[in-house]
Amino acid sequence: MIKANNPNLKSWVDVLPGSDFPIQNLPFGVFETTFGEKRVCSAIGEYVIDLVELEYLGFLEGLRIDTSVFSREFLNDLMAEGKEKVSELRNRLSEILQDIPGKWNGESKAKQFMVHMKDVDMQMPIKIQDYTDFYSSIEHATNVGTMFRDPDNALLPNWRHLPVGYHGRASSIVVSGTDIHRPKGQMIPADSDQPVYGPCRLLDFELEMGFVIGKKTKLGDTVSTSEAEDYIFGLILFNDWSARDIQKWEYVPLGPFLGKNFASTVSPWVITLEALEPFRVQGPKQEPEVLSYLQYEGQKNYDIHLEVEIKPEDTEGKIVSRSNFKYMYWNMCQQLAHHTVNGCNINVGDLYASGTISGPTPDSYGSMLEISWKGTKPVSMPDGTERKFIQDGDSVIMRGFCEKDGVRIGFGEAEGKVLPTK
Amino acid sequence: MIKANNPNLKSWVDVLPGSDFPIQNLPFGVFETTFGEKRVCSAIGEYVIDLVELEYLGFLEGLRIDTSVFSREFLNDLMAEGKEKVSELRNRLSEILQDIPGKWNGESKAKQFMVHMKDVDMQMPIKIQDYTDFYSSIEHATNVGTMFRDPDNALLPNWRHLPVGYHGRASSIVVSGTDIHRPKGQMIPADSDQPVYGPCRLLDFELEMGFVIGKKTKLGDTVSTSEAEDYIFGLILFNDWSARDIQKWEYVPLGPFLGKNFASTVSPWVITLEALEPFRVQGPKQEPEVLSYLQYEGQKNYDIHLEVEIKPEDTEGKIVSRSNFKYMYWNMCQQLAHHTVNGCNINVGDLYASGTISGPTPDSYGSMLEISWKGTKPVSMPDGTERKFIQDGDSVIMRGFCEKDGVRIGFGEAEGKVLPTK
Repeated sequence: MIKANNPNLKSWVDVLPGSDFPIQNLPFGVFETTFGEKRVCSAIGEYVIDLVELEYLGFLEGLRIDTSVFSREFLNDLMAEGKEKVSELRNRLSEILQDIPGKWNGESKAKQFMVHMKDVDMQMPIKIQDYTDFYSSIEHATNVGTMFRDPDNALLPNWRHLPVGYHGRASSIVVSGTDIHRPKGQMIPADSDQPVYGPCRLLDFELEMGFVIGKKTKLGDTVSTSEAEDYIFGLILFNDWSARDIQKWEYVPLGPFLGKNFASTVSPWVITLEALEPFRVQGPKQEPEVLSYLQYEGQKNYDIHLEVEIKPEDTEGKIVSRSNFKYMYWNMCQQLAHHTVNGCNINVGDLYASGTISGPTPDSYGSMLEISWKGTKPVSMPDGTERKFIQDGDSVIMRGFCEKDGVRIGFGEAEGKVLPTK
Repeated sequence: MIKANNPNLKSWVDVLPGSDFPIQNLPFGVFETTFGEKRVCSAIGEYVIDLVELEYLGFLEGLRIDTSVFSREFLNDLMAEGKEKVSELRNRLSEILQDIPGKWNGESKAKQFMVHMKDVDMQMPIKIQDYTDFYSSIEHATNVGTMFRDPDNALLPNWRHLPVGYHGRASSIVVSGTDIHRPKGQMIPADSDQPVYGPCRLLDFELEMGFVIGKKTKLGDTVSTSEAEDYIFGLILFNDWSARDIQKWEYVPLGPFLGKNFASTVSPWVITLEALEPFRVQGPKQEPEVLSYLQYEGQKNYDIHLEVEIKPEDTEGKIVSRSNFKYMYWNMCQQLAHHTVNGCNINVGDLYASGTISGPTPDSYGSMLEISWKGTKPVSMPDGTERKFIQDGDSVIMRGFCEKDGVRIGFGEAEGKVLPTK
């Protein structure tokens, strides 16, 4: 059998060059039909593939997956079916969409199960259970440590020994396209010891990726680095919106809280690990050597190009960062092994974000805090204005894609527009 | 109408002196029937009141509450019905259990809807959505600051200006009676810069209370201190198990993580704010004056006696702390107003814990870290052994109750036994 991610596969669907969704991708998402029903879907080119309709038409006969999971509001039940059944499903989707004369004749029924993306609203794909945010880019941690502590000791003593992380807020994670209100909160003005209450002044994005869990554990169980990929269903783009002034005042000693939990934005499509398989690369060398439970074998990083655009209202946008997921010092398998080493149980629908993904050069930094170096190096915008942080009316758009052997596996967008304080 | 919390009410059920569950309490929980079904229940004396059975018998006719919520595995849907309908339900339960000749004749059917507590297993009462832990006892924060930083500047600059809090892990919150395995993790030995991996050596409890949310908000909405009680359904006991050595090494700069998320224990009964109404007291004076959005009117603290027992396997236990919820510097209304001031949305089933509740004297400290003062003042146990922290085989039992006008409103227990590392 030819794998669904084989670069030689061709579809009868006309997929434009540069599309995020060739036949090799086949991501999962949730869309709302014209009659207001939420359904699980995949995608090819500019089209959403309605899995409920595909099943109704008989195209999914013989698969082991419980097809009732396609009528759910979230992907959780689909993911809980397990990787084998989901892989079978992706292989079938691939066959239906391939140009194999006489086999499925998918094209003859295309109008029934394919809907143009411009005609549908993509929904929050996951009912997120627990959400954890890591801090796993050494460039980001070094930049922040240099700015706020000591350039000669930018990394704290624990940083190279464990993937530092903290729990975040699941309730306020929203899907791409959802507007965000500038948060209010407490801040401390420079040279004052009295805090004030008002709208955040230093609103920022953080360019991150997140992985979602498709298989649960019981309290007390651990997941080793070699087992971790069995539990990871797929990846999404993640904007960890951050209110730097609120965060700065509140975060000692228990970590970020209201500076983060007003909103986070995810992309609507979950890209499976299977689709990303061809894009594995070796991660950075870890020195000193990590403790036994964090050691791993093989290539656990992924070569995923990332970019961030700031798009003011009614004028041209600008790409302010080009980074890559391959820069991560701590990989996802290490993150999950660390998270469960104490027996903490994980659930289907958990989301684990990477932390800001900064590269080695200023044009690859993953937040305005770093790009504008605390506001000292403003970014010039095409309309002549400057940005130190994000202004009301700005949309922040994150994009990601892998590319190799003529195949581009993309993530779509995680977009959010900032509205004035409510 | 006589309120269900009226101290003069008498029931035909024989409630022993010192019981946590007189007719004025009427808490909510979930139990498993002998045939394996989970059902919502209340309690009186030593009995569980089966609400499904009570409805079947016709006792709940005319109430506005959707009685299908009694057949759920968690209280979330009951809470979401709203305070008015739940208050009506409690009033009806009170009438049925009161000794009013000829009115309901509850006693004649008692065997059908009452089950002795020893014959049932209480379940996790809430499907917890997001969980936040505050740090709102000034005595606790001062003790920790004195031990680890500077006795002259024990409180950090933000502490008196906002209720410091952080997000915790919902998945590993378990109900009283669930055994806990001693967690493994990374720690840094004294006088070393190289971490080691192994079982936690400094396992601790934290005596806390938590409030659960019964009414949701939308992203962007705020909840003021005066509105907060509309959103708070009730309170539980909460043991925030803590691995002090893991926590110490990992927590800079993003806060507690694996030192906490291996387990937390809650009591099975949710005590309504209505039942606690007679026990309101004034909280401590807050100096300096807090910002406008944190100001409040009226009595927002509650006089709830709390205690912690350490019970070794097979020998006598010892009460190691007697504290009180009234000591909280920041009250629940301020916590919720702060949490939502940035527009963070809350959901039915959210849990907000107080942080360790320490009183002013060493016998009222809420953690072994404080009671044994970092291990320098061990506690003598009845069997002649000593405790600096919690040992394998120890059960930690938290209890709480209010008492006034001859009425005692109790919380039951939050109990957990520590097993060796798995």
